[in-house]
Amino acid sequence: MNTDKPILLVEDNPMDVDLTLRAFKRRKVTNPVLVARDGEEALAWIPRWEAGEPRPLVVLLDLKLPRVDGLEVLQAYKSHPTLRAVPVVVLTTSAEHGDVQAAYQLGANSYIVKPVEFEKFMDVTEQLDVYWTLVNQPPV
Amino acid sequence: MNTDKPILLVEDNPMDVDLTLRAFKRRKVTNPVLVARDGEEALAWIPRWEAGEPRPLVVLLDLKLPRVDGLEVLQAYKSHPTLRAVPVVVLTTSAEHGDVQAAYQLGANSYIVKPVEFEKFMDVTEQLDVYWTLVNQPPV
Repeated sequence: MNTDKPILLVEDNPMDVDLTLRAFKRRKVTNPVLVARDGEEALAWIPRWEAGEPRPLVVLLDLKLPRVDGLEVLQAYKSHPTLRAVPVVVLTTSAEHGDVQAAYQLGANSYIVKPVEFEKFMDVTEQLDVYWTLVNQPPV
Repeated sequence: MNTDKPILLVEDNPMDVDLTLRAFKRRKVTNPVLVARDGEEALAWIPRWEAGEPRPLVVLLDLKLPRVDGLEVLQAYKSHPTLRAVPVVVLTTSAEHGDVQAAYQLGANSYIVKPVEFEKFMDVTEQLDVYWTLVNQPPV
């Protein structure tokens, strides 16, 4: 079972963090959720995973982050010899063609545009959560 | 909307093709589904996409294929300068650690183990279909 493996949420907006955690709870997801609040915190996980801490089932990555940009984080994860296997889902308000293309080119596993409307946000977050925790077979 | 964009199903087992199409229909998916029945047919799409035929929203790729293996197809797609952006979901009966690792290392966007039981197969196929046609933002 994958229910004990962590999910890493990289998100600087406290309201979005709160909504995401609420959507997960509604779906009765029991995976521990780690939160990195900027790109630097997201990068700081790399040496910890290298040292043997459990790798996440999936990383949910915002693009517009303070300090280090989300695309830079994506590049760092996806150019790593073993971490590149960890699924990274970009979860962002940007539907700009350039961002979508750049994310896929860098190796994003999926790209989700956050709905602005509350109920839709909850629905999409639930669906992506179920997909990556229950349907997808993780590399770990 | 993404409902007019094709899905490419790479699958040699006619029963699995039939079940997948039935699951899609049950979910009222209206995307045209193209079927490649071996690895060679899957590779033959590359020059057609390069020539301007619409690229698929997602490729559902079996691993055990006649003529050219699924992992070889995956490598060909994912080492292509622009086609690498097309999401590829491995859909296979193999849950072997080596296959899962190899697929993610080559750049698979997701890895799904086909359930043996009929209803579960239908459920998983519906979920993956909804995720990649409605929730995910494609690169195209």
